[in-house]
Amino acid sequence: MNIMNTVNSSADIKRLSDEELNCLASELRSFLVDSVSKTGGHLASNLGDVELTLALHRVYDTSKDRIVFDVGHQSYVHKIITGRRDQFGTLRQYGGISGFPKPYESNDDAFIAGHASNAVSVAVGMAQARTLLGKDYNVVAVMGDGALTGGLAYEGLSAAAASAEPMVIILNDNTMSIDPNVGGTASLLQSMRIRPGYIRFKRWYRDILSGFPKLYAFNHSVKEWMKDRLLPVNMFSAMGLNYIGPVDGHNLKELESVLSLARDIRDPVLVHVLTKKGKGCEYAEKHPEIYHGVGPFNAATGEMSPCGESFSDRFGIEICRLAEQHPELVAITAAMSGGTGLDGFAKKYPKRFVDVGIAEGHATSMSAGMAKQGLIPVFAVYSSFLQRGFDMMIHDVSLLGMHVVFCVDRAGLVGSDGETHHGIFDVSYLRTVPGMKIFCPASFPELEAMLETAVSECSGPAAVRYPRGGECDYHAFHPERETVLRTGTDLTIVAYGTMISEALHAADELQRNGISAEVIKLGEIGGNEYPLVMQSLSSTHRLLTSEEVCAAGSIGPVLASEATRMGIVLKSSFLNLGEGIVCHGTRERLMQDHGIDAASIAVAAFSLCGDRNNGG
Amino acid sequence: MNIMNTVNSSADIKRLSDEELNCLASELRSFLVDSVSKTGGHLASNLGDVELTLALHRVYDTSKDRIVFDVGHQSYVHKIITGRRDQFGTLRQYGGISGFPKPYESNDDAFIAGHASNAVSVAVGMAQARTLLGKDYNVVAVMGDGALTGGLAYEGLSAAAASAEPMVIILNDNTMSIDPNVGGTASLLQSMRIRPGYIRFKRWYRDILSGFPKLYAFNHSVKEWMKDRLLPVNMFSAMGLNYIGPVDGHNLKELESVLSLARDIRDPVLVHVLTKKGKGCEYAEKHPEIYHGVGPFNAATGEMSPCGESFSDRFGIEICRLAEQHPELVAITAAMSGGTGLDGFAKKYPKRFVDVGIAEGHATSMSAGMAKQGLIPVFAVYSSFLQRGFDMMIHDVSLLGMHVVFCVDRAGLVGSDGETHHGIFDVSYLRTVPGMKIFCPASFPELEAMLETAVSECSGPAAVRYPRGGECDYHAFHPERETVLRTGTDLTIVAYGTMISEALHAADELQRNGISAEVIKLGEIGGNEYPLVMQSLSSTHRLLTSEEVCAAGSIGPVLASEATRMGIVLKSSFLNLGEGIVCHGTRERLMQDHGIDAASIAVAAFSLCGDRNNGG
Repeated sequence: MNIMNTVNSSADIKRLSDEELNCLASELRSFLVDSVSKTGGHLASNLGDVELTLALHRVYDTSKDRIVFDVGHQSYVHKIITGRRDQFGTLRQYGGISGFPKPYESNDDAFIAGHASNAVSVAVGMAQARTLLGKDYNVVAVMGDGALTGGLAYEGLSAAAASAEPMVIILNDNTMSIDPNVGGTASLLQSMRIRPGYIRFKRWYRDILSGFPKLYAFNHSVKEWMKDRLLPVNMFSAMGLNYIGPVDGHNLKELESVLSLARDIRDPVLVHVLTKKGKGCEYAEKHPEIYHGVGPFNAATGEMSPCGESFSDRFGIEICRLAEQHPELVAITAAMSGGTGLDGFAKKYPKRFVDVGIAEGHATSMSAGMAKQGLIPVFAVYSSFLQRGFDMMIHDVSLLGMHVVFCVDRAGLVGSDGETHHGIFDVSYLRTVPGMKIFCPASFPELEAMLETAVSECSGPAAVRYPRGGECDYHAFHPERETVLRTGTDLTIVAYGTMISEALHAADELQRNGISAEVIKLGEIGGNEYPLVMQSLSSTHRLLTSEEVCAAGSIGPVLASEATRMGIVLKSSFLNLGEGIVCHGTRERLMQDHGIDAASIAVAAFSLCGDRNNGG
Repeated sequence: MNIMNTVNSSADIKRLSDEELNCLASELRSFLVDSVSKTGGHLASNLGDVELTLALHRVYDTSKDRIVFDVGHQSYVHKIITGRRDQFGTLRQYGGISGFPKPYESNDDAFIAGHASNAVSVAVGMAQARTLLGKDYNVVAVMGDGALTGGLAYEGLSAAAASAEPMVIILNDNTMSIDPNVGGTASLLQSMRIRPGYIRFKRWYRDILSGFPKLYAFNHSVKEWMKDRLLPVNMFSAMGLNYIGPVDGHNLKELESVLSLARDIRDPVLVHVLTKKGKGCEYAEKHPEIYHGVGPFNAATGEMSPCGESFSDRFGIEICRLAEQHPELVAITAAMSGGTGLDGFAKKYPKRFVDVGIAEGHATSMSAGMAKQGLIPVFAVYSSFLQRGFDMMIHDVSLLGMHVVFCVDRAGLVGSDGETHHGIFDVSYLRTVPGMKIFCPASFPELEAMLETAVSECSGPAAVRYPRGGECDYHAFHPERETVLRTGTDLTIVAYGTMISEALHAADELQRNGISAEVIKLGEIGGNEYPLVMQSLSSTHRLLTSEEVCAAGSIGPVLASEATRMGIVLKSSFLNLGEGIVCHGTRERLMQDHGIDAASIAVAAFSLCGDRNNGG
């Protein structure tokens, strides 16, 4: 790692010779595999953009130019070469560096990233600010081809074209295989881009390509989808953007000259770069989907230790069972078939499976249309990403009372992905959707039962929310709206989802200290009717809620105010994640930090019961 | 109105001769102008799609085929000819027919509409349901060119192409002027669409048109925007849709034959129809923007009675004043420059004004990018439409603490536009955004002061929410977070925004009946700190809140639970709009219905104080 260790900025990259650069690329790949094999993280996409990142630093200076990464899990190389190499062993760990760009970590990180398709919009805003304030830095958005499936990207591209701002949009297209011929043709193409013969050439090129559809096919599993996706690259020039590409994303010299050209056009330019996910690492190249986001693995072989069964896995099994019973059931994903556990369903029921790409808004509205005409759409989606479908849940699904089932995966803290990915706003936004039923399983059997209820018994919008990973040490089956899991006389602890496990541990601890806690588990939240909680409060007069969500829209105040409405005199304590900005780290550590783990619940309970002997 | 009175279904339309159809079109236009001049409503767009609607009914049968209107305010003709002619005098009035498609009103209305750009997504879902369930009806989406600026439309169009479902998407493009030549060329074009020479012809046609940019220019005010918008129609074929057009949208014969052709292709087809807003009514043709959505007017002259000054008007004036002080202030609208009061700003500061089209998500992310680089973006947007920016407010604006000012217009009940347009979810979703300051002016002077605070003093995300229309009978100036407007001893009434006027009237009424109400006005909501309310409650022990928003996320429970947390014993009553589905009608009537007007507040207060003499 002789060269890598000398590099800490764009300026350092610019100093290197061609030979040194190629050597650095190799060093970076070894370092990435070695480091990510220990910490876990995103591997394949970072291996794929080594040369692209180096070329960006050759052409731009990230200490002043603003490079906005889309999604951002492909920013590892950028981080390593801008002063964060030595901390890279702390990647995604509590207190360590984030797996996503963070301006608070380094000025070289221009903006936050995590949710797809926003980078062009952000960059357009930055470019306009630059021009209006008379500054002279460059603005670049780096977007993957996946992000292009989101409507926000389209809005951003339209705006970029309309703005006529000097800016460069890099489309890092890593779903096409590159062979030397295509690379060669591509470089020919881009050099011809600025000659008069270009248009004629492009037509000829497209005709040729139509005979080799695989060269140009995006890696969506449905063939029709591929076919329709053959030509949208032409869309960019139609929208008024200057289009350059495709360019071989592993040819540093070519990349550098194309990026310089694009920068100097002083107009909105889209550069279409072809890269290979997992490049240079055999197992990652072969299975980029497996080495997209990973836990620790064996660096030599790629072998990973098996994970325990997750809620997503169980969902995947149960939804197949329900599909057998309900021929009108369809499953929908927004580019997260594997993550949500739908791969099995997709294989078993290909005609009843729809992957819409990163388009949660469309998935929601489409589901409403399906439901209106007699299907039962089940949209499996991460809590944090469903935020994009908020308006459509209200407008398209709820106002007509459509029976759409939202399977809200990654609800609660997600751990090492950090603040952009925690699913801690959904209780608030789901409760806001009129008529939405919200089920909160805490165990696999409850997931199955609640999913069945949502599919077979509900007639309007319903959501089943469950966490990343598997069960905590609660494995019981209490699918009812309210269950008294433990009786007590001093206070009432209310929790839902896997948080119930912390509540039960806290009650044990309290018991050992002479405090008798009643523990009530909510299987369903939403609405105001919690008769068992009210009955309990009318005897304990102390309410403690612990929730793995942000304070706004949490259930605690609903229960307390319902109690006051019923005339129950009450003391209360609401534990939750506050305003909802929670960094990365293990779930356990983050729960401790925010005071919602068993120990914190016990402490809060002590405090709440402090006046116990005074008859309070 | 001889023919119109005989027409009540698609079948009736199909029976008519060419001559009768043309006559019907005239009758419909007269009827529209006459009727809308009395009730108010959307005029120009409905005059523009008379022939298109008739052609749809010639080709389709809306009793079984599913025609999904986008936005939907252009569905009047459809309503009139499907059995709702006689009730048309009740348009947009309480208990009368809605100004938007409503399946609960008629089976001929396939889906709900109101928020733009969703129709293709909904239609894709319907088409898939049709095919999976083995039915044989047709599915059509009817979308305006404005809706095409929304990313959701792009997601829908991508999905339509990918689905390969037989379906027709009508792009009702009413921003281009049509002269006979273009119409003729258009019909030539569409007939050539299926011949081999088409491609060559299209190139020639485009070259010709490039000499007449006005023919093809969309009506965006910025010239560059127009230029860039010249060619996106080609986008459709690039996306894999069959493209037919442009077609003269006022030539019934041509429309009918093109629509039949499109229907019979049995594949996703986009038909590009050119119409003229306001067609056949001189003043509406001349000023379609004025006669887009109107109150009652003089049918002969188009003359309207002047409106009183609105919060939007005041915002428009104040933002110009602030722009003078702050050269880094920029104003943003999502296709609502007039409605939000920004027309003056746009004229005065054209370089600092951005109209992004119907793209609230992009506007929000772009604002975040602007703020990151030193601008102060002020995004003026309707409450109900900002739901589309929910995720971007959290992800792009809030997590980095960006200083973006959201001017949330049409907050609360909007009246005759009904359930899709009421701004009654924003308190819930704005409170969910970490760090969001939420200001609630109740008078013009408060709007000015709070806007100034949001722009000049806040350093993170801030929202100023204000209603449609003007002040109620509260004109005072109390911009503080909490103000005791009236002292009392029996209960504490808390309200914010123009609802304060109802609270004060209720207090008067209560006074007359021997109940002493303390009235506290909140100038800011969000967070948990309400010391004046807490102080008041610790003496009155009775809390009544009245809010013009849905129950979920409302402030009442926050105040009550904060009181219980502080150990204040309390009885409470929370008045609000329940789950948030509220029909159309006057604000006054809707407030009565939902029990949040002065009289209802007084009644609730009586009930809350019922135990007053028992020392409760």
